[in-house]
Amino acid sequence: MKGIWKLRLGQPAEEGLLALTGACANESLLRSDACPLCSAAIECEQIRERFVLRVPLDPAERLYGLGLGFQSLTLNHSVRHLRTDHYGGRDNGRTHAPVPFYASDAGYGIFVDTAENISFYMGGAVRTDAAVPPPEKNRGRDDDWRCDQDARFVEISFVGSGAEVYLFAGESLRDTVAQFNLLCGGGCLPPKWGLGFWHRMHIRHDEAAVTAELREFADHGLHVDVVGLEPGWQSNSYPCTLEWDRERFAEPAAFVEKLRQSGTRVNLWENSFISRKSAVYSRLLPFCGSHQVWGGAVPDVTLPEARELLLRHHEEQRAGVSGYKVDECDGYDGWLWPDHACFPSGHSATAIRNIFGVRLQRLLTGLFSKRGERTYGLVRASNAGAAPLPFCIYNDCYDFNQFLTGLATAGFCGVLWVPEVRDAATPEEWVRRFQLSALSPMLMLNAWASGAKPWKFPEVESIVADTIRLRRMLLPYLYNAFYTYRTEGVPPFRPLVMDYAALRGAEDAASGRLDDTDNPYELCEVADIVDQFLIGDCLMAAPMLPGQSERDVILPPGRWYDFHTGEPMSGSIRYACPLERIPLFVKEGGMIPLLQPDGSLLVRCFGAHGSCTLYDDDGETTAYENGCHALLHLSFVRNEQGVHGTCTIEDHGWQTAYTNVIFH
Amino acid sequence: MKGIWKLRLGQPAEEGLLALTGACANESLLRSDACPLCSAAIECEQIRERFVLRVPLDPAERLYGLGLGFQSLTLNHSVRHLRTDHYGGRDNGRTHAPVPFYASDAGYGIFVDTAENISFYMGGAVRTDAAVPPPEKNRGRDDDWRCDQDARFVEISFVGSGAEVYLFAGESLRDTVAQFNLLCGGGCLPPKWGLGFWHRMHIRHDEAAVTAELREFADHGLHVDVVGLEPGWQSNSYPCTLEWDRERFAEPAAFVEKLRQSGTRVNLWENSFISRKSAVYSRLLPFCGSHQVWGGAVPDVTLPEARELLLRHHEEQRAGVSGYKVDECDGYDGWLWPDHACFPSGHSATAIRNIFGVRLQRLLTGLFSKRGERTYGLVRASNAGAAPLPFCIYNDCYDFNQFLTGLATAGFCGVLWVPEVRDAATPEEWVRRFQLSALSPMLMLNAWASGAKPWKFPEVESIVADTIRLRRMLLPYLYNAFYTYRTEGVPPFRPLVMDYAALRGAEDAASGRLDDTDNPYELCEVADIVDQFLIGDCLMAAPMLPGQSERDVILPPGRWYDFHTGEPMSGSIRYACPLERIPLFVKEGGMIPLLQPDGSLLVRCFGAHGSCTLYDDDGETTAYENGCHALLHLSFVRNEQGVHGTCTIEDHGWQTAYTNVIFH
Repeated sequence: MKGIWKLRLGQPAEEGLLALTGACANESLLRSDACPLCSAAIECEQIRERFVLRVPLDPAERLYGLGLGFQSLTLNHSVRHLRTDHYGGRDNGRTHAPVPFYASDAGYGIFVDTAENISFYMGGAVRTDAAVPPPEKNRGRDDDWRCDQDARFVEISFVGSGAEVYLFAGESLRDTVAQFNLLCGGGCLPPKWGLGFWHRMHIRHDEAAVTAELREFADHGLHVDVVGLEPGWQSNSYPCTLEWDRERFAEPAAFVEKLRQSGTRVNLWENSFISRKSAVYSRLLPFCGSHQVWGGAVPDVTLPEARELLLRHHEEQRAGVSGYKVDECDGYDGWLWPDHACFPSGHSATAIRNIFGVRLQRLLTGLFSKRGERTYGLVRASNAGAAPLPFCIYNDCYDFNQFLTGLATAGFCGVLWVPEVRDAATPEEWVRRFQLSALSPMLMLNAWASGAKPWKFPEVESIVADTIRLRRMLLPYLYNAFYTYRTEGVPPFRPLVMDYAALRGAEDAASGRLDDTDNPYELCEVADIVDQFLIGDCLMAAPMLPGQSERDVILPPGRWYDFHTGEPMSGSIRYACPLERIPLFVKEGGMIPLLQPDGSLLVRCFGAHGSCTLYDDDGETTAYENGCHALLHLSFVRNEQGVHGTCTIEDHGWQTAYTNVIFH
Repeated sequence: MKGIWKLRLGQPAEEGLLALTGACANESLLRSDACPLCSAAIECEQIRERFVLRVPLDPAERLYGLGLGFQSLTLNHSVRHLRTDHYGGRDNGRTHAPVPFYASDAGYGIFVDTAENISFYMGGAVRTDAAVPPPEKNRGRDDDWRCDQDARFVEISFVGSGAEVYLFAGESLRDTVAQFNLLCGGGCLPPKWGLGFWHRMHIRHDEAAVTAELREFADHGLHVDVVGLEPGWQSNSYPCTLEWDRERFAEPAAFVEKLRQSGTRVNLWENSFISRKSAVYSRLLPFCGSHQVWGGAVPDVTLPEARELLLRHHEEQRAGVSGYKVDECDGYDGWLWPDHACFPSGHSATAIRNIFGVRLQRLLTGLFSKRGERTYGLVRASNAGAAPLPFCIYNDCYDFNQFLTGLATAGFCGVLWVPEVRDAATPEEWVRRFQLSALSPMLMLNAWASGAKPWKFPEVESIVADTIRLRRMLLPYLYNAFYTYRTEGVPPFRPLVMDYAALRGAEDAASGRLDDTDNPYELCEVADIVDQFLIGDCLMAAPMLPGQSERDVILPPGRWYDFHTGEPMSGSIRYACPLERIPLFVKEGGMIPLLQPDGSLLVRCFGAHGSCTLYDDDGETTAYENGCHALLHLSFVRNEQGVHGTCTIEDHGWQTAYTNVIFH
């Protein structure tokens, strides 16, 4: 049971999420035989102006997805009114990536392809005429009364004339999610420099300040792979000209080239609300919405004319930079255009809001790909169809647990989430935040407001430096994980439950205690495992939280090894961990290639024997899309004399630099 | 400039909020001359399926209202998507009373009479073609860059065919709000017993436990005016039979009568999701919605048949009780019917959600008024049109500041808010919570889960008892304040700004400091004054917060007096306050009649001279609606010998018991 089917609900307008985001749904993946899930069981109804879809649900199923969340992983019993917005402290559907896709651990997934706001009732809405109503209890007497009712259906509703609905069948949650990602075109493959160390500088830095700050980094032995320039690079921001401030940066192209020569790329902050002072304003205005944002005109990004003007303006102002950070395309609600705004394309304001971030990602990705380059950037809003677009989502929150949960939920919706470092109250927190960021899609210090440097706490400067070094050493492994994302759709960072269905977390009975203020409905929470996650094929991280000196770690079935010591372990363990160490575990037979400063590859081998294939290419152009790459077939056997490894290089038009391979 | 005008927007369906809640809009108040506000300035547009209303806004105006909020009073720049729900931690429109009415301190108010969800953009939505666009700033350089844009319009949008819009003109915010309340039929006048001391007992108490607990109260010298029975009184709850559990209460009517003989009324908890086990279930089912809540059928309260069945069932089970607490008619979102639910009346699920609580209040009020009695109760959802209905809103939050803000915002939307006492971490918090509750529409200890008693902290038992006594002494004054609510629409509890426009609070410049996590947009908050409020004509409360031993108090213009000491004061003061005292201040010339244990009235007089009229009636029947009442005309002059007071009683068919009046 593996495949994708498409259902047609009503009369889908040409306004699906995939169409409006410009995604190329890979419909070659669609199966034409009868779908095992939707024979007669899925019900569809039109009620007034709404479409309602009812998908059968077994109470034993566990549901995941519906976009980027920060509180919990399990969706059962929740209601999500999906709508693009800055996360407001509750997983209620208003979020940066409100992706209308969910996966069940019963082996299927559902994606409703509408750009309109859509509501999902994840097993709490019970019809009065339900064939199998939940048992009736008496709260006044029955201790087993439950607030949550187990509905036998997920109910989905949205306003519109119809939508296409995709069904995915997979043997595991990972399979199901991978198929969703493949339908959207496969995951992104960032350039190698994007997986290095990012530093975003203070909003008002000019060329001299940037140069001086990079020199400071060098003095501290730190190399910045990507420097981020914040609003101050523009001649006007909030609203934006998207043009260089020539007082701060007299010769942008020369400046950017100079940085590039020294191995530092430039990423530019922007939002897409265009100032009257911008050269593109008057030409763009006819293709903008009825309402401004911060005084800036809002391009109707569904119109080719608007996109073309934006693209050309970016080209004119690019000055050799390598990417962008697209801010505020999500909201906050109070600052975006209102729901009744009009756009010249005729698309609704809510639909444009839901696709705005994806369209900008696609436009900016194209800016580079048309010249054969790759990019990697940041964005604050995304949605379905964005998996192939090399952007990471960030926001203004800063809670460590929420950052962890974000990593887990992002894995279920085809987006990347970055737990950036901004500040810390203690040296210990500073280190733990760097460690988490180093094990995420992007290692970034974002000092746009604080001006913080990695050596903010001198007593842990060397630990932070080592953390950045570890990230560099992991590059070949991380890059390979992204390649698997690209070609197989498997998220490079994902929660345990995606690979190990049994690790879905039980209900925490203690959490169900009645409290008239904090828990008046005696709700039991599901103890989702979000403080551990998988990276690539064989690595598992269990980051230490600020304040922890030891923690519980759940090792999935089989034997695992401590990445640092090689010690074998299994089951549930208590793990003590000094500040300088990130708890990392490798699966039996796992091989972790570590890039050494001299360019050689030290392959750490765990267990008795194993093999893997390591992907490599030029790391910065789009030549790989035409098959230009190399594969390193690695294998090892451990015996009494030690580890015996072999490496066979398969050359597909790219001569890998990883020629010196040492097994350990 | 004072009056009410009505505009017609599009083709209003017969589904306005007033119509669906069964409110009798007092259209005799409408003026027929040209409205000074709406000549040409108010714009109206139909965009797709939405109606958009644009109301001019001057940047100097301050806006208030849009239902019960808990974070702030001032609405400017906010977006509210009104929808009935349990308050979720943000003032975003999802709340217990999402009343689509707002008032401007420029002397007008707007009420959009639609039961559908409706969005208000309170001066942040700026059109790209705005005649007066806000000045453009550069965040990269200008220190006076502001995130909030000053739009010159409030924009209001909702889906539907149209709506009636009411415009109110008033000389002060109080006038404007009073006119809104009068249009809705005037405020409620609770029975006198409702203004006494309420105690809600543990969910599983039976007759013996209730009796024993009341005896305990008596042993502690405390009289309970209203005892609240929680879900356990019913034979089934969650879902509800609305029928007595005969094992716990063998003879309900005799039990209730016995309590009444001893001066204690009974209030019954319920929600309106009907169990299959209820005698009314099968007859009600045809008039119920498509989806159940907690296994209970949801009556379509817009149908007379459903209301009639519910009314009769309540009558059959009433057993002499004096009122109800209607729980969970607001949500939480996850437990109510979904937005796509169908109701036999054909009204939308969202509209029914927005009026459900009001309809239940009206139904239960009618249960008593048809037999000439008054009631006073609790409800968790309300809306426009509920001002005449004697119910207080409560919720599951427990933050002291939010409770204060709730009192302030409730005053702007024709509802009553009760800061109930549930529990406390310290004796001091316990006292401060009782003190706040004693100065609110309802003094209530809600021990449904905690089982707490007023003497929970023995060291402050006497202070709590004194607080309850103070509440009783204030009865004549509070009752009079409610009479003013009833006849003139003036809220009995209201924030200072409603009477004193100058006390609207300034922007707190310190709050606008850039913080990349807590305040990335450098927002300045308005320091609304919500920790002080007016009660009736001449009393102002400035409750102490837990942890405070002294606080700042802003006295409105003129001379004020310390209620406790009589000391005159004015301006902004620092007020030190021992635990046993509630900071209370009386306006120059104010008179506070205090009911003494012997039935006499001690009128505390403040200042040189003053006069007032004190309303009185039987306090429990509806005879007052036919004019049956008494008026006590009180006046005083203070000279060197002391206070000389006069009292003239105007008898309108009711002989007041306040015949022994002492001035002090």
